[in-house]
This record gives sequence, structure tokens and C-alpha cells, in this order.
Amino acid sequence: MSAIKSEILNANNEYARQFGSKGELSMPPSRHAAILTCMDARIDPGKLAGFAEGEFHVIRNAGGRASDDAIRSLVISHKLLGTTDWFVIHHTNCGMETFTNEVISGLLEKSLHTARIDQGIWKNNDETGGSKEGKFINWLTIENLKESVVADVKRIRSHPLVPSKVNISGFIYDVKSGKLIEVTG
Amino acid sequence: MSAIKSEILNANNEYARQFGSKGELSMPPSRHAAILTCMDARIDPGKLAGFAEGEFHVIRNAGGRASDDAIRSLVISHKLLGTTDWFVIHHTNCGMETFTNEVISGLLEKSLHTARIDQGIWKNNDETGGSKEGKFINWLTIENLKESVVADVKRIRSHPLVPSKVNISGFIYDVKSGKLIEVTG
Repeated sequence: MSAIKSEILNANNEYARQFGSKGELSMPPSRHAAILTCMDARIDPGKLAGFAEGEFHVIRNAGGRASDDAIRSLVISHKLLGTTDWFVIHHTNCGMETFTNEVISGLLEKSLHTARIDQGIWKNNDETGGSKEGKFINWLTIENLKESVVADVKRIRSHPLVPSKVNISGFIYDVKSGKLIEVTG
Repeated sequence: MSAIKSEILNANNEYARQFGSKGELSMPPSRHAAILTCMDARIDPGKLAGFAEGEFHVIRNAGGRASDDAIRSLVISHKLLGTTDWFVIHHTNCGMETFTNEVISGLLEKSLHTARIDQGIWKNNDETGGSKEGKFINWLTIENLKESVVADVKRIRSHPLVPSKVNISGFIYDVKSGKLIEVTG
């Protein structure tokens, strides 16, 4: 077993040992809210927005973008599990601001292995053979952070499966200060 | 401002006040790992797997499914940000086990508002007008929990943009006990 898998299972043993009454939590989020945010490691939604297990749905992807899959999740969140307040949170220093569709598909064509960024330019560490499959993907990169929040809130707001009674707000999370800043479009 | 938005901003003020050295964390996850799991409110990945800000990427959607969007995020996670261990975590008592594509698209066609489950059957609370758009979505529901984990690990493993050096493991998280149980295909 890999070291990190062992570490996770050991930590989980301790979590389960102190689980207490959390086993009685019900499926629908008790605070009727959902957060859509980035997969970025510096973001812990529960800590930065002050909620615990059982309270919020959390949807995360690269960029915290309003992808079709995020919308699938949000529609389930409201329709079947009753959330009525949705928060879209993008963040400063996001990796999605450092590349374009052309950059990542070009890198992947030459190698699947990890690249490095050098003075703002992504470069492969090897050219051991890649795949052209990256050209078929819209990577949903971000050119302007504020505009991406506004566009994503707008996309969700205008989706035919999202009722007008759901409240949707947009924020930028500052990874240097820990602060949430509301963005209005 | 809605009550819940005020609560989040108040909690965030306190988080930012005690932010300490977290503003110095760098973008790539320090433990080179990513978790793909469900949006379910009962899941707090950092708590249940024992990691803090800066350590893991977290990707979440309805079901924790290996959707195209989750794969987009995972490929970015490895290619640009160096993660080499990925953990797919589905969970017991998942909402995605309670319906099918036909059920949710049928409900949405009659109403966009929240439905209720009654003796295992989803029913609309009103029929105020919906949308046929739900029929164009694959909702990625789950029929068998263990099979969904195995299928999702397999889909990621065989994706042309995922290199063989990335380790991928599958788990079921038990929401009643807090325990992670490894699933091998």
C-alpha cells in the first residue's frame, strides 16, 4: 500500500473513532445551501465559510466553473435535496489563469507527465509521448477572475432547469488573506 | 442580504482573522494527492481523510462520478500541479441511488421546484411548469455502489490523458460509521 493511502486510512480510523452523533445526519443539507468552488488545495470550504458536516453541498472542479457537470449537480441539489442558496467561489492565484486550451492540449500531445512553469511559460519536462485527446476538451480556463465569476453566475441563473427562487451569489476567495469578496455582475 | 450569506461572511471574517501563515501556501498540493468524491453534505474530505489546507486537490460532484468534467480536473491536477495519487470516494446512502434519468427528467418536466421522496418514490410537490431540458442530461445515477466505484476507477485508469504512473484507488465512505472501506475491482 502506498504511504499516502496508509496515512489516509490511519487518519480515517481516528475520525471514525470520534464520529459521535454524525452518523445520524440526514441526506438533505440542513442549511439548504450549496457551494461551487475550485479543487485548489488551499480551499477548505467548511473552514472558510463556517459550516460542518451535514450543512452544505459542496461541488468542486478545476476553476470552480459552471460546467455542465456542476449544473447537473446543482439541479439535483435543489430539485431533490432542497437547497435554495448557491455560492459560486473562484479564487486569486488560480492555476486556471496560467494557461489556455491551446497550451494544455499542446503539452499533452507531447507528454502526459507533469509539466513545469518557467517565467510564466508552461514547459514539458519530457517528451515521452502523449495524446491528441486534449484537443477535444474545453478546459474552461480563466482569463479574468471577476469576469469568470460573473459569467458563471449568469450561466447558472439562466439555465432552463434552475428556478428563479434559488438565490445565486458570486465571490472571489483571496488565498493570501483568507477573505471572501463578493462579486456583483 | 440573505441570512445565510451574512452567516458565511461573518464566519469568513473570523477565519481570515486567524489565517496565520496559510497565506504562504503554494498552488501545487503538498501531498501530491487528489480526492474525487460526492457533493453530499455529510462528507468533509479534509476531516475524514486527515488533511489540511494546501495538501490535497478536492473534486466533487453529485455522486463523486468520473464525469468528463472530473477527468478534466484530474488531468490538470496531475499534468500541471503534480498529483500522483488519486482517491475516488463514493458513499453509502447516496442520493444518486434513489432515482434514474427517467425519474428526474420526468419530475423536471412538470416542475423545477423541490420534490419529495415518499416510500422510495420521488413525487413533485407542485406542477407549476418545468422544462424538457432534463432529458438531454446524463444524470450519472448509481444502481450499485461498489460497481459505480469500480467503473469510475476503471474509466479514469483507461483515459488516454491519464498516465500509468498515477495511482488510483477506490473507496466507499460509510456515512453511518465514518469509515472508509477500500473497493478493489
